[in-house]
Amino acid sequence: MKKGIAEYQVGDAFDSYMLIKSASKGVASNGKPFLTLILRDATGEIEAKLWDASKEDEQTFVAEQLVKLAGDVNQFRGRLQLKIQSIRPAQLTDGVKAADFVEKAPISPEELMEKLTEFIFEMKNPNLQRITRQFVKQYQEGLLTYPAAVKNHHEYVSGLAHHIVSMLKLAKQLIDLYPDVDQDLLYAGIILHDLGKLKELSSATAPSYTLEGKLIGHIPMMVEEIGAVAKGLGIEGEEVVMLQHMVLSHHGKAEWGSPKPPMIREAEMLHLIDHMDAKMNILNRALKKVNPGEFTERLFAMDQRSFYKPVFTNSYRED
Amino acid sequence: MKKGIAEYQVGDAFDSYMLIKSASKGVASNGKPFLTLILRDATGEIEAKLWDASKEDEQTFVAEQLVKLAGDVNQFRGRLQLKIQSIRPAQLTDGVKAADFVEKAPISPEELMEKLTEFIFEMKNPNLQRITRQFVKQYQEGLLTYPAAVKNHHEYVSGLAHHIVSMLKLAKQLIDLYPDVDQDLLYAGIILHDLGKLKELSSATAPSYTLEGKLIGHIPMMVEEIGAVAKGLGIEGEEVVMLQHMVLSHHGKAEWGSPKPPMIREAEMLHLIDHMDAKMNILNRALKKVNPGEFTERLFAMDQRSFYKPVFTNSYRED
Amino acid sequence: MKKGIAEYQVGDAFDSYMLIKSASKGVASNGKPFLTLILRDATGEIEAKLWDASKEDEQTFVAEQLVKLAGDVNQFRGRLQLKIQSIRPAQLTDGVKAADFVEKAPISPEELMEKLTEFIFEMKNPNLQRITRQFVKQYQEGLLTYPAAVKNHHEYVSGLAHHIVSMLKLAKQLIDLYPDVDQDLLYAGIILHDLGKLKELSSATAPSYTLEGKLIGHIPMMVEEIGAVAKGLGIEGEEVVMLQHMVLSHHGKAEWGSPKPPMIREAEMLHLIDHMDAKMNILNRALKKVNPGEFTERLFAMDQRSFYKPVFTNSYRED
Amino acid sequence: MKKGIAEYQVGDAFDSYMLIKSASKGVASNGKPFLTLILRDATGEIEAKLWDASKEDEQTFVAEQLVKLAGDVNQFRGRLQLKIQSIRPAQLTDGVKAADFVEKAPISPEELMEKLTEFIFEMKNPNLQRITRQFVKQYQEGLLTYPAAVKNHHEYVSGLAHHIVSMLKLAKQLIDLYPDVDQDLLYAGIILHDLGKLKELSSATAPSYTLEGKLIGHIPMMVEEIGAVAKGLGIEGEEVVMLQHMVLSHHGKAEWGSPKPPMIREAEMLHLIDHMDAKMNILNRALKKVNPGEFTERLFAMDQRSFYKPVFTNSYRED
Amino acid sequence: MKKGIAEYQVGDAFDSYMLIKSASKGVASNGKPFLTLILRDATGEIEAKLWDASKEDEQTFVAEQLVKLAGDVNQFRGRLQLKIQSIRPAQLTDGVKAADFVEKAPISPEELMEKLTEFIFEMKNPNLQRITRQFVKQYQEGLLTYPAAVKNHHEYVSGLAHHIVSMLKLAKQLIDLYPDVDQDLLYAGIILHDLGKLKELSSATAPSYTLEGKLIGHIPMMVEEIGAVAKGLGIEGEEVVMLQHMVLSHHGKAEWGSPKPPMIREAEMLHLIDHMDAKMNILNRALKKVNPGEFTERLFAMDQRSFYKPVFTNSYRED
Amino acid sequence: MKKGIAEYQVGDAFDSYMLIKSASKGVASNGKPFLTLILRDATGEIEAKLWDASKEDEQTFVAEQLVKLAGDVNQFRGRLQLKIQSIRPAQLTDGVKAADFVEKAPISPEELMEKLTEFIFEMKNPNLQRITRQFVKQYQEGLLTYPAAVKNHHEYVSGLAHHIVSMLKLAKQLIDLYPDVDQDLLYAGIILHDLGKLKELSSATAPSYTLEGKLIGHIPMMVEEIGAVAKGLGIEGEEVVMLQHMVLSHHGKAEWGSPKPPMIREAEMLHLIDHMDAKMNILNRALKKVNPGEFTERLFAMDQRSFYKPVFTNSYRED
Repeated sequence: MKKGIAEYQVGDAFDSYMLIKSASKGVASNGKPFLTLILRDATGEIEAKLWDASKEDEQTFVAEQLVKLAGDVNQFRGRLQLKIQSIRPAQLTDGVKAADFVEKAPISPEELMEKLTEFIFEMKNPNLQRITRQFVKQYQEGLLTYPAAVKNHHEYVSGLAHHIVSMLKLAKQLIDLYPDVDQDLLYAGIILHDLGKLKELSSATAPSYTLEGKLIGHIPMMVEEIGAVAKGLGIEGEEVVMLQHMVLSHHGKAEWGSPKPPMIREAEMLHLIDHMDAKMNILNRALKKVNPGEFTERLFAMDQRSFYKPVFTNSYRED
Repeated sequence: MKKGIAEYQVGDAFDSYMLIKSASKGVASNGKPFLTLILRDATGEIEAKLWDASKEDEQTFVAEQLVKLAGDVNQFRGRLQLKIQSIRPAQLTDGVKAADFVEKAPISPEELMEKLTEFIFEMKNPNLQRITRQFVKQYQEGLLTYPAAVKNHHEYVSGLAHHIVSMLKLAKQLIDLYPDVDQDLLYAGIILHDLGKLKELSSATAPSYTLEGKLIGHIPMMVEEIGAVAKGLGIEGEEVVMLQHMVLSHHGKAEWGSPKPPMIREAEMLHLIDHMDAKMNILNRALKKVNPGEFTERLFAMDQRSFYKPVFTNSYRED
Repeated sequence: MKKGIAEYQVGDAFDSYMLIKSASKGVASNGKPFLTLILRDATGEIEAKLWDASKEDEQTFVAEQLVKLAGDVNQFRGRLQLKIQSIRPAQLTDGVKAADFVEKAPISPEELMEKLTEFIFEMKNPNLQRITRQFVKQYQEGLLTYPAAVKNHHEYVSGLAHHIVSMLKLAKQLIDLYPDVDQDLLYAGIILHDLGKLKELSSATAPSYTLEGKLIGHIPMMVEEIGAVAKGLGIEGEEVVMLQHMVLSHHGKAEWGSPKPPMIREAEMLHLIDHMDAKMNILNRALKKVNPGEFTERLFAMDQRSFYKPVFTNSYRED
Repeated sequence: MKKGIAEYQVGDAFDSYMLIKSASKGVASNGKPFLTLILRDATGEIEAKLWDASKEDEQTFVAEQLVKLAGDVNQFRGRLQLKIQSIRPAQLTDGVKAADFVEKAPISPEELMEKLTEFIFEMKNPNLQRITRQFVKQYQEGLLTYPAAVKNHHEYVSGLAHHIVSMLKLAKQLIDLYPDVDQDLLYAGIILHDLGKLKELSSATAPSYTLEGKLIGHIPMMVEEIGAVAKGLGIEGEEVVMLQHMVLSHHGKAEWGSPKPPMIREAEMLHLIDHMDAKMNILNRALKKVNPGEFTERLFAMDQRSFYKPVFTNSYRED
Repeated sequence: MKKGIAEYQVGDAFDSYMLIKSASKGVASNGKPFLTLILRDATGEIEAKLWDASKEDEQTFVAEQLVKLAGDVNQFRGRLQLKIQSIRPAQLTDGVKAADFVEKAPISPEELMEKLTEFIFEMKNPNLQRITRQFVKQYQEGLLTYPAAVKNHHEYVSGLAHHIVSMLKLAKQLIDLYPDVDQDLLYAGIILHDLGKLKELSSATAPSYTLEGKLIGHIPMMVEEIGAVAKGLGIEGEEVVMLQHMVLSHHGKAEWGSPKPPMIREAEMLHLIDHMDAKMNILNRALKKVNPGEFTERLFAMDQRSFYKPVFTNSYRED
Repeated sequence: MKKGIAEYQVGDAFDSYMLIKSASKGVASNGKPFLTLILRDATGEIEAKLWDASKEDEQTFVAEQLVKLAGDVNQFRGRLQLKIQSIRPAQLTDGVKAADFVEKAPISPEELMEKLTEFIFEMKNPNLQRITRQFVKQYQEGLLTYPAAVKNHHEYVSGLAHHIVSMLKLAKQLIDLYPDVDQDLLYAGIILHDLGKLKELSSATAPSYTLEGKLIGHIPMMVEEIGAVAKGLGIEGEEVVMLQHMVLSHHGKAEWGSPKPPMIREAEMLHLIDHMDAKMNILNRALKKVNPGEFTERLFAMDQRSFYKPVFTNSYRED
């Protein structure tokens, strides 16, 4: 397998493909324009400067463009930098695709879709099932490629579907322990709760906020769309209001973006499950990066805490 | 003019009509059921007990029922109470109507409607004008009768229209002072901002929260409805998003129920104008009840402050 | 089965046993002392006044005393009250015991103990297992009878063990979903996290705070005791510190009583599981008391929210 | 008209006058002292280094000194910098004055003074009018030149008078809408509310905080001075206390610097008007700098929000 | 010595003098007016109803009036009440004075004045000493009789002087430990810091807030007055600003009423000493009322905490 | 006396001993490793780069190592830097010791120990005295060398003992003023309150947090240890609980790390004394660094305030 950018060191020569994550223009001290490129592959990122950039360069080397580069890896202010010797846009004949240059969920989209279908199949309430099916059908492509968030948790390709399936599994277990919960409402709420992000964010691989995303936000957009879909399907009544309430309240508090807090049991559960799965995703990925006896970096979404990885635990695990 | 309930004193005999604001059932120490009625007319409220209430009484004497009563006014624990000697539902032939038994805006619905029409007529952007017209047409009855809120400010019949027209006048003056403001967007935002309350509250004269009002709230409901109305009229584009953003953000902060804060100038103005008109309505009405040299009662919506009415000011007013 | 106090109505005669929950002395307008007794059985509570109470009465009728009473149920300010005709302490020969007059967990202590033993048996780390066993052995009686809290959640006899076993089941499922978690540390943390309450509270059936409970609190007391028990067993090292940290941090934040927030993965999970099981216990019990289409009373430990019980859900449940 | 500094680009030669906004001393790597000068004209600022600065240079090139410079504009770390070839203090014969090198209100001091005089003329209460006149007379020069604040809003020459006149216009309109308001008290409060800044800040063109400004602040200083002025004019009674209260409470809350919140109607209005005019000033100036379809920079005094400038609005404006 | 009201019990006859603390009018169920009197002596308070009160009674029996009463002590809703048989205003010939019917500082005004004079005598800075002397001379009567606060701490006659002298003693000790502190500034700040309360409150024995007290508050009033007194004495310069800053900042934080926090060492000390002496006064008085082994009532000004009085401590005290 | 590092200037030659405070590794642009050393003596710190550092260098030049250096002082980005010409570890024969290269309390450890002994000797309660003696004996070395904190206050060698003795002196004065305080409990609490820091921090001269310090913290560790010591000495009862409570609550509030707030008088005093002595230490040291008429730097532990040093005060001091 090819070496990822995370494995390069100072002095290594580079001759391979990368995806442009962002490109911004500057003016050098000699008065000539240059481009600062952030390049990525599935393992990480590196910065590169393209000096004496022409107008054409500016239009060619933009976010989401795949490029072929040659150059050397050196260091600037303690961070690695790629010194570009040649750069060109990737072509169809190069046989590379953007999706291979970004981090992805540990489960394939096909498998995630299969799991999702199983859960929908288990639903018995026809109204909830039909609305859910309609959304999954309509948004299938985005649902299987978008991240669950721009940063913090599940912030990788297929992160949204990965998060949803993980939450559904957790929900299934909880329904076993607390059997009064309405399974269908909880499943529907989990599947739909973050679908508004498909309109809030601009793309799966280089997501930024859309105008509607910034001024309305994924929660009210999704509440509106559930109303429209239900009307389209001729479904009325309490289920629709409950489903809108599930989505509306899933951030838990007004100051976290939910104008109403959870006011039905399933909405409270949705909030707790979302919270737990997001935290476990953050924690597990951060702890994987450190050795036993060390602390992780400070984790923004965990109140800036560092977590310790104990030394003793390995000795007693079976595997 | 007939004497209002606010003018009765201990010992007065009563023989007239009242509107039941609320009715609740209790069990007396003799084991028999009774009803506690809160009765109101346009000047105020009084409590009455209907002892030995039958099943039929329970079903007859309910909120929003007009009744004819005879009895005496006495006092219980420092508050006036009506001792019922006879009570019956008002009949068509009595020639009384509920609307005369509640507090009303100081301007008539007709005049408010006329003002509203003038402002809409001044709008030049056809998209904003058409959406606004459609809402006013569709909701005209509620718009002209509902209060602006259940308590705190403009909490009287036609309070919503009164608040809207007062805000529009203020907006007009502000546009003179700050001419960069988009008049049409501001007018449309003012007219629509609280229309969701027509679905959030159950009625104009005895308003309580509907299920949808409690679980979704007037702001997301209205955002959804603007989307649906625009689609129905075939209007798309920035104006629709801006109008939804105006409504969404008009409470100003997430913890006050707006998942997005104002992010366009006109949304900020809508929030400030709403705030100012609500505060002036509260203050003016509270200060009317006290004499110069006194403090008002503590005002909940003004951070529990009491306001002082200065003595000196009268002497220099022209009127 | 005997009628519980919750089933009595105004006018009913009473002749049975009750447990005194609290007794407080007052002086009547005739200058004579009386006792206000709060009496309970497994279904609820009722107030009673014992007039002209002698010194001996004061010493006899105290909290946790079982009594035999005869009298009538009447009403005072809208609440039921028991008018005492005769009262005497229950005697051995009466064949009643306090434990039958309080609310209890829906699972028997024996079954809870069995479950607990199974989970401990699954632990592989000998240090964690030995410390846990030692605590369970030493505190077995309290562990199986104490409530998990004085109010809010699992506030009934055996509530602590019920809460622990419910959390252990949830933990088992979560370890399946997130297999990096250290099972033994999580199990040990769950079992020990609230054992300090056995010293913080005075008794299982009429719990109040002890002096040490008020001035030190169950968390630091338990941290201290884990240190002492480990030393007694000759166990040293990281496991002990981690276990102390689990207990110390399980309230999640300094302002909720944990001087350190969770800083290892298992501590974070302990906190999340504790939170989820407590909330589900509160919600499920509150929703059982209302009919579909109604809201629960405001729930103090759920940020004063009322929860709605949907109407639609019954129709699609299998049972 | 001469080119302003904001219009210069990398490579341009410079030969003109600038005002020194601040000067600070450093030591170069060769051990010799240098000065970092921030230079400004009415359009903006630029940094310049004066190498090998002598003791005399240090004393000559200080804040508020006008200088004649020749040099070249180049770039350092992405920002323009002026490379000095020659520099000397401006002389009387140069015919330049500091006032032309700073940002100014869009209305002339003369016109602002005229407006102010008109409003004072409208006042009918002789006590309030006399106190107000006395302050305006005594502080006229500062009032017409000082900014309203060091940053955030109206932070330009004559900003204070511009803010006051703008608030007075707004007040006049509001009094039309809410006629119970005492015009004279509101006018007097608006004119005096920020005059304490003339003592809090050191100068109109390069304002910094005075010792008294830092340790006492403009609000208590102004309350004290109203007391002294009223005593000097032989005026006593409620008007004086009300006026002191207006100034004291105009920041609205203790945490914003007002030890008492507004407790009379006119004080509440003063606070709301101050708030509205400050926000509109910030918003209008920030939106002028961006094109339709863009967001402004984050605005510190607007809770760090960025504001969007809609695209659609231009098409329907008459002008 | 005469029996204080705190020593009376149900059934005792009463025939003595009391001070009216407050009087409020009500209307009885028979339609006749009555007065609710709160009566006090130096040991405590009791409520009494004066039935069938005439207009003259209303004007006679008002707050701060000394009265002679005869009647019986009985009980209403668990609290003692005085049943009035006869009541008349006290006369000069009765030889009683209001000051004997209120709680007083444990040290006499004469002794407090002597102590105060000693501390002023120790001051060496003539400016600070002259300002301080001037205030003490001007306000001597109020200073020696007013409480330090309406409630919470030193809320008794001469409480202000008691608090000041106690703080001065503490300051003297602290200057020994931290000799860099400026003694004169600290002494002057302590003596003046709360003198504004003499204008904020209406009287020494039945204090309520004056209009100026409510709308301006004692801190800004005192800052103003220091300015006026210094000007009157022809004193200018830093000492005056520092003294104003001491008073202005002594509450420590904006949200506690100080628009500027302490920004000189002596101001910080003044705040800390004020805080410590107030807390010790509250604690010592609350702990005196309970027995060893008990908790005090919840103390409002100590964050609602109850304090425990240990049992063990007495055995090792020498006295 | 030798010149301290704080007295060196650009261009000075250096040839003397320094203590390494911290050492971190980097990679230069030529790909070779280097060490960034922070070097300190009792007067201050300086940075130095050791280029082309070998593996051996990395292991030799570590925190807490004394070194002999020769080189020149120059400047990099406005800060002094030492350019190393030669460096070697200090040897026994060099006759230097680490303790001379760090800031120290102004009182010697011997004198501090003597004072401490006197205070313990004054204690009369044998239980409290024995526990205190045991701790002082056991921890004597750390107690006399550790700082009281890593930063903010008393952050120098012997800072802990200096803080304790200063607090004891303050306590003695306060007991004079408020004689109800239990001297022995207060003395014991002061001496023990921060001893947990000896386990929380790694060393006296280069303190960092230990694992136990990070995950448990000094307060719960000390509560545990008081329990263990008391058990070891066979002491039981209220004194032990009170002492644990003193330590537990001394930070005053849950959000500052005390799970219980002070609930006995002596605990409240301990908190207030700790607070006052820490603040005076910070203030006095910050004010020493500035001239009259200047402000100190912003002080983190004083809510980021800058303090002003008045000009007038010197003239009236006797010394």
